[in-house]
Amino acid sequence: MKMSQVVFTPEKNPPANADTINHRLLVQAGFVRQLMAGVYTYTPLGLAVLRKIENIIREKMNEIGYAEIHMPALNPSANWQTTGGWDKIDVLFKIKSRTGKEYALAQSHEEIVTPLIQEVTHSYKDLPKKVFQIQWKFRDELRAKSGILRGREFLMKDAYSFHLDQADFEKAYEVVKKAYLEIFSALNLDAKVTEASGGNFAEKISYEFMVLTDAGEDDIYYCPDCNYCINSEIATVEIENCPHCGAKLQPARASEAGNVFDLGGKFTRAFNFSVSTADNQKVYPVMGCYGIGVSRAMGIIAEVHHDDKGLLWPENVAPAKFYLIGLGEYQEQAAELYQRLREHGVDVIFDDRDASAGTKFAAADLIGCPYRIVISAKTEGKIELKKRGDENIQLVAEESLYD
Amino acid sequence: MKMSQVVFTPEKNPPANADTINHRLLVQAGFVRQLMAGVYTYTPLGLAVLRKIENIIREKMNEIGYAEIHMPALNPSANWQTTGGWDKIDVLFKIKSRTGKEYALAQSHEEIVTPLIQEVTHSYKDLPKKVFQIQWKFRDELRAKSGILRGREFLMKDAYSFHLDQADFEKAYEVVKKAYLEIFSALNLDAKVTEASGGNFAEKISYEFMVLTDAGEDDIYYCPDCNYCINSEIATVEIENCPHCGAKLQPARASEAGNVFDLGGKFTRAFNFSVSTADNQKVYPVMGCYGIGVSRAMGIIAEVHHDDKGLLWPENVAPAKFYLIGLGEYQEQAAELYQRLREHGVDVIFDDRDASAGTKFAAADLIGCPYRIVISAKTEGKIELKKRGDENIQLVAEESLYD
Repeated sequence: MKMSQVVFTPEKNPPANADTINHRLLVQAGFVRQLMAGVYTYTPLGLAVLRKIENIIREKMNEIGYAEIHMPALNPSANWQTTGGWDKIDVLFKIKSRTGKEYALAQSHEEIVTPLIQEVTHSYKDLPKKVFQIQWKFRDELRAKSGILRGREFLMKDAYSFHLDQADFEKAYEVVKKAYLEIFSALNLDAKVTEASGGNFAEKISYEFMVLTDAGEDDIYYCPDCNYCINSEIATVEIENCPHCGAKLQPARASEAGNVFDLGGKFTRAFNFSVSTADNQKVYPVMGCYGIGVSRAMGIIAEVHHDDKGLLWPENVAPAKFYLIGLGEYQEQAAELYQRLREHGVDVIFDDRDASAGTKFAAADLIGCPYRIVISAKTEGKIELKKRGDENIQLVAEESLYD
Repeated sequence: MKMSQVVFTPEKNPPANADTINHRLLVQAGFVRQLMAGVYTYTPLGLAVLRKIENIIREKMNEIGYAEIHMPALNPSANWQTTGGWDKIDVLFKIKSRTGKEYALAQSHEEIVTPLIQEVTHSYKDLPKKVFQIQWKFRDELRAKSGILRGREFLMKDAYSFHLDQADFEKAYEVVKKAYLEIFSALNLDAKVTEASGGNFAEKISYEFMVLTDAGEDDIYYCPDCNYCINSEIATVEIENCPHCGAKLQPARASEAGNVFDLGGKFTRAFNFSVSTADNQKVYPVMGCYGIGVSRAMGIIAEVHHDDKGLLWPENVAPAKFYLIGLGEYQEQAAELYQRLREHGVDVIFDDRDASAGTKFAAADLIGCPYRIVISAKTEGKIELKKRGDENIQLVAEESLYD
């Protein structure tokens, strides 16, 4: 990627209306632009980060046997009337077409995936079935705020599984829980797991994956030694120590980065989706749903990984591993290095703009790639390598950049 | 990809309501499922094809200097009121939120990209600017039909360029036109280029890229020897021969796979997006927009490339290059071959289902990967390789599959 072509480059000043760090830094550094509250455009830099997060999630979901599909955002109202969601879900956007037909804009896909899987499930032998998608969702939020943490339009990974019985579902549930903790760990997020009531959404108790951040909307008590946490709303009885490892619980603000719901037979019953078992019993498949906020995860990473100069992306979600700067007469040498790095498949952003050293260093700090490479008169054309957020400069041979 | 995990496998019978070949074959073979008229779910097989088409387009757009972004589908009504589109565009879906705020669902993004680029254009030196996105769009069609050719929700590549003057725009216009012809050629589509009136959408004459198919909605006259064609609605004066190469024009039905519009200053004026030139003249940038229907292209490819048994995907957009079948006792040997092929990075679907030879061969024909590999008792465990749609069987060594 060349900075002369990304169209959206870092700005001198932060946006005036930012209420959170992710909003301020992501806009100022040129990763997103706000169209309206809760609705953002993703720029080439932002899209690069979003795609890396997506791929970490996608690979793990494939690994645990979920098949990727893409369901429509535009839904017939009938599906939502069948479950009662049409009247009960206040964040559901509704559309009336010019011929008077009514549609919902999906804020989740239980109403679509249930009859979809029903169509291709002819026998109990066809179960379990497991699908996921990574898709933009819509919510009519009264107050969209906190940058990309709480959007009216946001990117979501939602997965659904259908099982013959509760035991099979519970095995799958544990597999997803483990996969989620691995995903958050790969995203460099320290996730705690709470048991929460599913509200009117689910029939049963469910898991929420909470990441500690002051920009979050939840108050929790968490265990510093294991993954346990509890929502403070639920902790009516005072709990002082972790029920798993005994450590003293700490209070914190947190953001819900993912969740896992045991939906039981709620949706399969609503759509009359049943199968006959081997001994001719009619059963409604047990259903699970599993969400991760993809754009929210990007916002949480920004909240957690930054310093006073800008973003500090972990390497596997950074827009690029290296930020390459050539100064003055060394600009051309930098261009040649960029070519060679690209040929070696190295993930690098080249600041090829006709701009001052100050502008380029400030951009490197704001954008927050893990490493900065500089070629300048100062080092007589040698390559300076510096870890972002660290003062130590190394002089390196080109070859060592290709690893 | 394993057939036991794709969830949506080929069906015995075609859907009852299919009005076109793409609808019939894509549903029966398990690439899409219809949610309602013009709105489809993409299955793992369908998503694999869609992603390959996307990537062919993405690479070419990057190559000619367009930066990829992602703009929101949920738009403030104000943007559409500014241009008059709110009242004039009858296919625009409108949403009223629960607080009474009004939004449009984007059917194209001129209303969003113009003020977006305006925000980051501070001087005439910042021009030209070129961006594109690949995104789901929405149209309130009175009659959505023809499978995925004409949807209410469809995947679109839309690009936009902003220029200081008409001359610079016209250079860019030619670059995109050439790139489009290369894209359609890579998609194995024979595209003809028509000059069409831009209707009330654009101020000027524009190009349309038409692909010959009986499922199309346009009647054209095309030149069999070059890319020229003309829409029959426009050909008021009878033209018998190609104005470029003199060959006799042929009548045909065609589908519009892409278009290029010269938008002039229509949108930049509406948003009061001006820059000062070097000699202090205030000018409104000249704007171009460039579309390709990505999901429509998938439908057109299905219309053009099939036989009476199923689909015949060109290699670079096929869900996989090979369809691997193991029969009877050779199922395990096929599984081992699948592993080895995957390790070599070979793009292959493995029909690992517990199903009859007939079911697997029918699936291979319907799904339409370019090559079929069979290991069975018939060839004493040797590998049979067959080109889809061809009767010739080759016996090959494993190594020759890895190229």
